[in-house]
Amino acid sequence: MKTRAAVAVAAGKPLEIMEVDLDGPREGEVLVEIKATGICHTDEFTLSGADPEGLFPAILGHEGAGVVVDVGKGVTSVKKGDHVIPLYTPECRQCPSCLSRKTNLCTAIRATQGQGLMPDGSSRFSIGKDKIFHYMGCSTFSNFTVLPEIAVAKVNPDAPFDKICYIGCGVTTGIGAVINTAKVEQGATAVVFGLGGIGLNVIQGLKLAGADMIIGVDLNNDRRAWGERFGMTHFVNPKEIDGDIVPHLVNMTKRGADQIGGADYTFDCTGNTKVMRQALEASHRGWGKSVVIGVAGAGQEISTRPFQLVTGRSWMGTAFGGARGRTDVPKIVDWYMDGKIQIDPMITHLLKLEDINKGFDLMHEGKSIRSVVVY
Amino acid sequence: MKTRAAVAVAAGKPLEIMEVDLDGPREGEVLVEIKATGICHTDEFTLSGADPEGLFPAILGHEGAGVVVDVGKGVTSVKKGDHVIPLYTPECRQCPSCLSRKTNLCTAIRATQGQGLMPDGSSRFSIGKDKIFHYMGCSTFSNFTVLPEIAVAKVNPDAPFDKICYIGCGVTTGIGAVINTAKVEQGATAVVFGLGGIGLNVIQGLKLAGADMIIGVDLNNDRRAWGERFGMTHFVNPKEIDGDIVPHLVNMTKRGADQIGGADYTFDCTGNTKVMRQALEASHRGWGKSVVIGVAGAGQEISTRPFQLVTGRSWMGTAFGGARGRTDVPKIVDWYMDGKIQIDPMITHLLKLEDINKGFDLMHEGKSIRSVVVY
Repeated sequence: MKTRAAVAVAAGKPLEIMEVDLDGPREGEVLVEIKATGICHTDEFTLSGADPEGLFPAILGHEGAGVVVDVGKGVTSVKKGDHVIPLYTPECRQCPSCLSRKTNLCTAIRATQGQGLMPDGSSRFSIGKDKIFHYMGCSTFSNFTVLPEIAVAKVNPDAPFDKICYIGCGVTTGIGAVINTAKVEQGATAVVFGLGGIGLNVIQGLKLAGADMIIGVDLNNDRRAWGERFGMTHFVNPKEIDGDIVPHLVNMTKRGADQIGGADYTFDCTGNTKVMRQALEASHRGWGKSVVIGVAGAGQEISTRPFQLVTGRSWMGTAFGGARGRTDVPKIVDWYMDGKIQIDPMITHLLKLEDINKGFDLMHEGKSIRSVVVY
Repeated sequence: MKTRAAVAVAAGKPLEIMEVDLDGPREGEVLVEIKATGICHTDEFTLSGADPEGLFPAILGHEGAGVVVDVGKGVTSVKKGDHVIPLYTPECRQCPSCLSRKTNLCTAIRATQGQGLMPDGSSRFSIGKDKIFHYMGCSTFSNFTVLPEIAVAKVNPDAPFDKICYIGCGVTTGIGAVINTAKVEQGATAVVFGLGGIGLNVIQGLKLAGADMIIGVDLNNDRRAWGERFGMTHFVNPKEIDGDIVPHLVNMTKRGADQIGGADYTFDCTGNTKVMRQALEASHRGWGKSVVIGVAGAGQEISTRPFQLVTGRSWMGTAFGGARGRTDVPKIVDWYMDGKIQIDPMITHLLKLEDINKGFDLMHEGKSIRSVVVY
């Protein structure tokens, strides 16, 4: 079949809207009509050429929602007409990782997914004889896409596509980092570095988990109102304080009898390795947990004195918020439908596929929280 | 009163045995006759001058056991005649850290202890008018020493001093890193870097916790037999393998259906920041925990790519094995008395106080696991 798609033809070039060939689903695969897709920083990271594993030409996009229109042989968990969210972190429920109960990082199709291919080692996308790569196993910048059955989460059919597509990455990553990875408890103190699409979801996750003090850190003062909307209690612009941000935050988090200070939990949502270090060091002696969420540039490293760890801080990270896609994503869709979490205000821009490059411009300019393409 | 002690007169100089003046216990303090003391790498670290917080002249030593011979006003938890182990990590049970249930790093007397002083800001040791500093709140290289009540653990009076003194640091640090900090479970895989006095205790902690695969890593082949004695199942000498140690260990830990590899838990007992990185990177994608136990030199930093954390590894550290001294140390003494853990074979050398510098020589030459001074 033919489908309309925004194709990343080369690193650093705008996406090109074109009609591409799409092979139907093979065994264990499903064909999904994508109804809406968010534009995430990770798409931008790859499109820019900064991602050392980026492949071109490819169809980017990994934050979608749509409807199953066909299934291949052997598919049992979804059927035509089901509403689904594609999963860049699949959940096979059979591999050592899925069975470990310790991680969401399913390894069933990891090798081929990293190569921009379906599990059988081929691509479903092409233009004539020229292969086009899949991206993060999703390629939601195409109106139709093919996915392994283990990489779709079946969700509430009443949920609006142009909102729940965001659950395919940003919402789940932010909220999941709080509840699955850090396991924040009632009454905690927390600092969130970077109040973009991920950081705001970390904030709403912290609010959900019952954190008492939620400090947002951003260089852009416009983000203060954004943070407050989702539960942030304090805002710090590093450019507007005297001296280093770490002692500033440590002082802010001294409470009651505790005159040591430091946040119980800190989250890096910037991808900046210097900020990752600040996040660790602003966490509390004895028990602070610092979670890296942002993706750093190729070859960049984080550093600290080991004394920071020996005195009780833990440095950890999260991918897709530690969420198991098929198990947890449907629950998060229900939380949205029940009003337990907000998504609507974060979808700042709705675009047509033809205008998808404008979504990247809005991101660069810091004008959007999330731009969503509606097919 | 007068007491014999080995005094660290200056960085890099041998200890000098002399008679020093010791003031009796003030309110909340106890006078302890030290019966035996281990010589630990941390004493060596400070004596060498590498410790930026080292103070001189001081009476070093922090791994002791002895008998209470006098108590100051208000002391209620121990009395004359009680057998005790001094605690460089006290346990006041009142401060925010003790009450957090999340850390053993009691802060009640942290500031003065770091200054080489008792909690009232003075020293009990002197020679004539010249003050001598306390060390790590213990100063077990003195036959008699004064300690805050919250810094002694009352232990089984049948236990031999020349063995249980080692519980004052090495044994508790190694075993505690496994059971309190990493929380190793039955069937786990683990790698221990550095098979000295701490590493061997990590190994016996892993055996206690039921780990299936316990890999020891050391540059000294003599340590293979030592490791095996306490439960090590595999030994690697990095000098005797081709290529990098990390992929070597990752390959060794591929088991059954899991063809990703990496250990569930890794422990650095070297203090070498390059080894700390190897330990992190040799831990398992998705859930590996890497615990820093060794103390690095001043100003040294650990580094890695944040991708290591984002893909599920946690980097943490431990001090005194996460043990609460007054609560946990008596239990570990009982474990020793019940034959649940071994100490005797690790005490390779017994020395008189006059020969204490020989204990440092044996450590430098890699000939001892633990030298113990018996008064």
